[in-house]
Amino acid sequence: MINITLPDGSVKEFEKGTSAMDVALSISEGLARNVLSAKVNGTVVDANRPIEEDSDLQLLTWSDADGKSTFWHSSAHLMAEALEALYPGVKFWVGPPVENGFYYDVDTGDHTISQDDFGKIEAKMLELAREKNDYFRQPMSKAEAVAYFKEKNDEYKLDLLEGLEDGSITFYSQGNFTDLCRGPHIPNTGFIKAAKITNVAGAYFKGDQSQKQLTRIYGVTFPKQKELKEYLEMVEEAKKRDHRKLGQELEIFAFSEKVGKGLPLWLPKGAMLRERLENFLKKAQLKAGYLPVVTPHIGSKKLYETSGHWDKYGEDSFQPIKTPEEDEEFMLKPMNCPHHCEIFKTRPRSYKELPLRLAEFGTVYRYEQSGELHGLTRVRGFTQDDAHIFCRNDQVEDEFKKVIDLVLYVFKSLGFEDYSAQISLRSKEDRSKYIGADGDWDKAEAAIMNAAKEKGLSTVIEYGEAAFYGPKLDFMVKDALGRKWQLGTIQVDYQLPNRFELEYVGADNQKHRPVMIHRAPFGSMERFIAILIENTAGNFPLWLSPDQIAILPISEKYEDYANEVYLELQDKDIRGYVDHRDEKIGRKIRDAEVNKLPLMLILGEKEKEEGKVSVRKKGEGDLGAMTIAEFVAYAGKEINKNIPKFGE
Amino acid sequence: MINITLPDGSVKEFEKGTSAMDVALSISEGLARNVLSAKVNGTVVDANRPIEEDSDLQLLTWSDADGKSTFWHSSAHLMAEALEALYPGVKFWVGPPVENGFYYDVDTGDHTISQDDFGKIEAKMLELAREKNDYFRQPMSKAEAVAYFKEKNDEYKLDLLEGLEDGSITFYSQGNFTDLCRGPHIPNTGFIKAAKITNVAGAYFKGDQSQKQLTRIYGVTFPKQKELKEYLEMVEEAKKRDHRKLGQELEIFAFSEKVGKGLPLWLPKGAMLRERLENFLKKAQLKAGYLPVVTPHIGSKKLYETSGHWDKYGEDSFQPIKTPEEDEEFMLKPMNCPHHCEIFKTRPRSYKELPLRLAEFGTVYRYEQSGELHGLTRVRGFTQDDAHIFCRNDQVEDEFKKVIDLVLYVFKSLGFEDYSAQISLRSKEDRSKYIGADGDWDKAEAAIMNAAKEKGLSTVIEYGEAAFYGPKLDFMVKDALGRKWQLGTIQVDYQLPNRFELEYVGADNQKHRPVMIHRAPFGSMERFIAILIENTAGNFPLWLSPDQIAILPISEKYEDYANEVYLELQDKDIRGYVDHRDEKIGRKIRDAEVNKLPLMLILGEKEKEEGKVSVRKKGEGDLGAMTIAEFVAYAGKEINKNIPKFGE
Repeated sequence: MINITLPDGSVKEFEKGTSAMDVALSISEGLARNVLSAKVNGTVVDANRPIEEDSDLQLLTWSDADGKSTFWHSSAHLMAEALEALYPGVKFWVGPPVENGFYYDVDTGDHTISQDDFGKIEAKMLELAREKNDYFRQPMSKAEAVAYFKEKNDEYKLDLLEGLEDGSITFYSQGNFTDLCRGPHIPNTGFIKAAKITNVAGAYFKGDQSQKQLTRIYGVTFPKQKELKEYLEMVEEAKKRDHRKLGQELEIFAFSEKVGKGLPLWLPKGAMLRERLENFLKKAQLKAGYLPVVTPHIGSKKLYETSGHWDKYGEDSFQPIKTPEEDEEFMLKPMNCPHHCEIFKTRPRSYKELPLRLAEFGTVYRYEQSGELHGLTRVRGFTQDDAHIFCRNDQVEDEFKKVIDLVLYVFKSLGFEDYSAQISLRSKEDRSKYIGADGDWDKAEAAIMNAAKEKGLSTVIEYGEAAFYGPKLDFMVKDALGRKWQLGTIQVDYQLPNRFELEYVGADNQKHRPVMIHRAPFGSMERFIAILIENTAGNFPLWLSPDQIAILPISEKYEDYANEVYLELQDKDIRGYVDHRDEKIGRKIRDAEVNKLPLMLILGEKEKEEGKVSVRKKGEGDLGAMTIAEFVAYAGKEINKNIPKFGE
Repeated sequence: MINITLPDGSVKEFEKGTSAMDVALSISEGLARNVLSAKVNGTVVDANRPIEEDSDLQLLTWSDADGKSTFWHSSAHLMAEALEALYPGVKFWVGPPVENGFYYDVDTGDHTISQDDFGKIEAKMLELAREKNDYFRQPMSKAEAVAYFKEKNDEYKLDLLEGLEDGSITFYSQGNFTDLCRGPHIPNTGFIKAAKITNVAGAYFKGDQSQKQLTRIYGVTFPKQKELKEYLEMVEEAKKRDHRKLGQELEIFAFSEKVGKGLPLWLPKGAMLRERLENFLKKAQLKAGYLPVVTPHIGSKKLYETSGHWDKYGEDSFQPIKTPEEDEEFMLKPMNCPHHCEIFKTRPRSYKELPLRLAEFGTVYRYEQSGELHGLTRVRGFTQDDAHIFCRNDQVEDEFKKVIDLVLYVFKSLGFEDYSAQISLRSKEDRSKYIGADGDWDKAEAAIMNAAKEKGLSTVIEYGEAAFYGPKLDFMVKDALGRKWQLGTIQVDYQLPNRFELEYVGADNQKHRPVMIHRAPFGSMERFIAILIENTAGNFPLWLSPDQIAILPISEKYEDYANEVYLELQDKDIRGYVDHRDEKIGRKIRDAEVNKLPLMLILGEKEKEEGKVSVRKKGEGDLGAMTIAEFVAYAGKEINKNIPKFGE
């Protein structure tokens, strides 16, 4: 008999050689129907693999990332089986699960796979799925495996085999398809109820441009038809919300060939949006005790030699900037921290000044390959809402709590209600690579976990994920389409204070080294605004909307009154425009809606006579007539509804 | 007889061969006593030079820059005479007037001139001045001149003579001193009533480090003793106000060797000051119809090839930034205009959108030799309060008026009440070098002059000073010490719209090229803040002061009340700090004064009991006790006193 420990801590006895599926069945048949694979002592395996010793067991279903991964891996095999049936003679390279589905790199011989084939492949996959063929695992010697693929004349799998060690090789088969594969897989093809081939693209063998081009076929599958439908709707909606598309339509930003790839130009509406976000955070930061600083966008190469960035990233960065006459070289700054360390060093510091929180909306430049660039989420220049907290070790917990408060304030104010955190700590085993005193790490790790717990954060702890220079906490938010985004990081740093030899004089009149905490609630303005655009579909809350009001005179007779209203509202910091065009009011309203204006003020004879405006709110329609003062009060209330005061 | 035209336009007849001094005497003896030299048809000459033809004549006195220049040039000769008398055998290289006085580069032989000699030299100069020796002009043939200096064994003047053409050589003598010199000079040494040797430094012969080192002796002289006294007081005061000194003491900015020379780090107080200035201008610009944009600090080299900056400045700039993998090179941006042109081009533009005013606080980088760097006034990275107005030719005048309004609003809000402007137009003669249609230039020049006139600006018009790409208007302000600073420029540009092929569709449905206007009221944040520090001696107006209030509890018993007051005021956007130190209240007040705090709130038993604060205003003393609400109202009024609303 062996002991099986479940995630809730309960321990059950089973016979040696029992499987995860047996354990599931012992709990409930309904559960067993949903088990895709299992995590045994941290390793994902087939649900029917025998368990030979006392083990920790986690049953994996569709709701687990690893369960999904198994499902999509098995789906890749199912697609391969379908392709083999439809296009005899196809050969396969690799077929992994990916973030949203799977792909297989295929040599399709003479046949070219196109969109026209997608329906046929999907139908064949579902036909084979209905056969509920089991996935069989079969260990193989290397010689047997080589012989098998030699007979099939499969140069791709033979190539794969070259890199594998005898004793570690397994085949997986389902129905008429057999593949060299280390698994794991779902119990049988019947779990796959919905399939969609999503894309086809060229992919070089081994990613090497000098090699043969294969066909990469992408697909996605689901355990329920309904989930595919929802997924396709989500994809459709995500396309509409794509910040690259919306950002251009709403004139938030643009790119220019001559300025350079990955270097966004912020158009007036985007610049206003950015400024409002910055002012919003600046205000909260002022209250939270941060001090603003401004530093240049370049620094002497010496600075980055001191910080270590030159050794670590120099070769892959934008190259040093020479001058016409001097030996000194400068670098575009990839991070703000070295500059902030130099500010710390501008004069002797006392323990009374700590925590010293230096904040800067600092624009940094990092070279990315042009193929990796993507809208605002992957750029070559971006502005971090950066700050560095210089503090004593015993202040780390309190500072973490304060930063968590600030980050959650930001999330809530901006409509991200669904968030969680990952805490990255040292590896439990090998601690040799971490710098800083062991005792300090212990305290800092405990401090982070305490802070997260006290602030009620839902957290995942990842051992071994800490940077060598300190533990950290990353925030994840789920957007309106259920997609997860990494935002905001709080990172402890024991390294830079050493490299810059930072010191403060303690209460004991001795010199001490401070700890540094890096933090950025937005992460970067570029990435955050991209996510904000996609989350809101461009329907920004009133306080953020670049144009808050459209003033729509119903004819040119009311132009003067419209201008008057415009100036009065501008004076009250309510921004917008007058639609001066010679168009029907219906058209003006429609265009304002397309431009996602939160509020429209319609002005005609009655409004002019009574000194009022007729207010129309996006999504809610007519709110009736108001005096300017009433409207200002209303708009003020609407704005404040969305931004609570920090600390309240 | 010849006609002499005076600056007021009046014409008088004189005998041929009359001198400026004769003309002065014909007007009044008092005037004649003050004439230092004269401008005859635009050329500065000795006041006693005969005038042989009809001429425009301007008599130059101490109040004219050219008059001062003559005075100091003659003073350099007087100093040389004194040096020759005191240290026989000294030899002279060159001795020009400079901005505030004059210098002479001298080979002093075995004797080393030091501070100890200054008094002696001054006394000798005044002794010789009292002799009222005339300055004599004497044309010389090159052969005579060479013979003269050969005999004197003067290798320096012989070297100078090598570069001169026969027929252009003159000697000037006064008392026992004769110099090779093209003049002009003042009538006699008696005009010089006060002299001060200000400095001594090494200077290489011909500025060449491989040559002999000479001694550069600096001096300054005045026509009245009183003026020297005032000057020395001003110099003393300027030293105290030096922004490099005050900026460090008040923790406005700092430099770091590792970040690099000429790259200021803005410390928290400086960053706050900057931000307030930026917000102040942003607010006015919003009202004036500007749209914010944000652009990266680098651009592809292509961008600067298009703009022409690469050809013109590339070699002397920070060199191009290479990437690890691509051919493309990037440049640190020296100007924001090319980026703004690319924003103009992001989509087709209509005449209805013009004037399009794009504004950015854009940080630019320009390489300066390290020897030229000076505090915040000459740096390698600076932030321009930049904007580019894209408009039709017929909108230039109106836009100039609007920009002048904005600039004057800035000056007045910031305490610069004494300002003037220089308008730079095409040369009257050679117009071949200017690009853009002649008719457009005519209109633009007229537009600028009309705008300046209508806005009541005191202006100087300089022909030939326009850039080849357009006319401009520069603002000069006089600071509290009477020093003049160039601030704010409005520049018409016909070139960049051509180079970037900018177009808009006119009301006629045809494509047209817009005009561009560059403008920056502050010029740069760095330079403006340097001037602001020197003008206010760090006593910033309340609304700009980084710390507005110091909260001073008279003992630790009132710490809690002090914190309470602090938070309440912070919530009302009144910034400052609590002086938590265990010091006597007198010391706390003194330190707050040293730190130039505009307002102090003193808290003791009575204040705590009554929920009040005792207010002390810098320079005015005790204002009595106020409730928090009363103080907030008072501070609000004090703040608004200094910043009128734009457009009112």
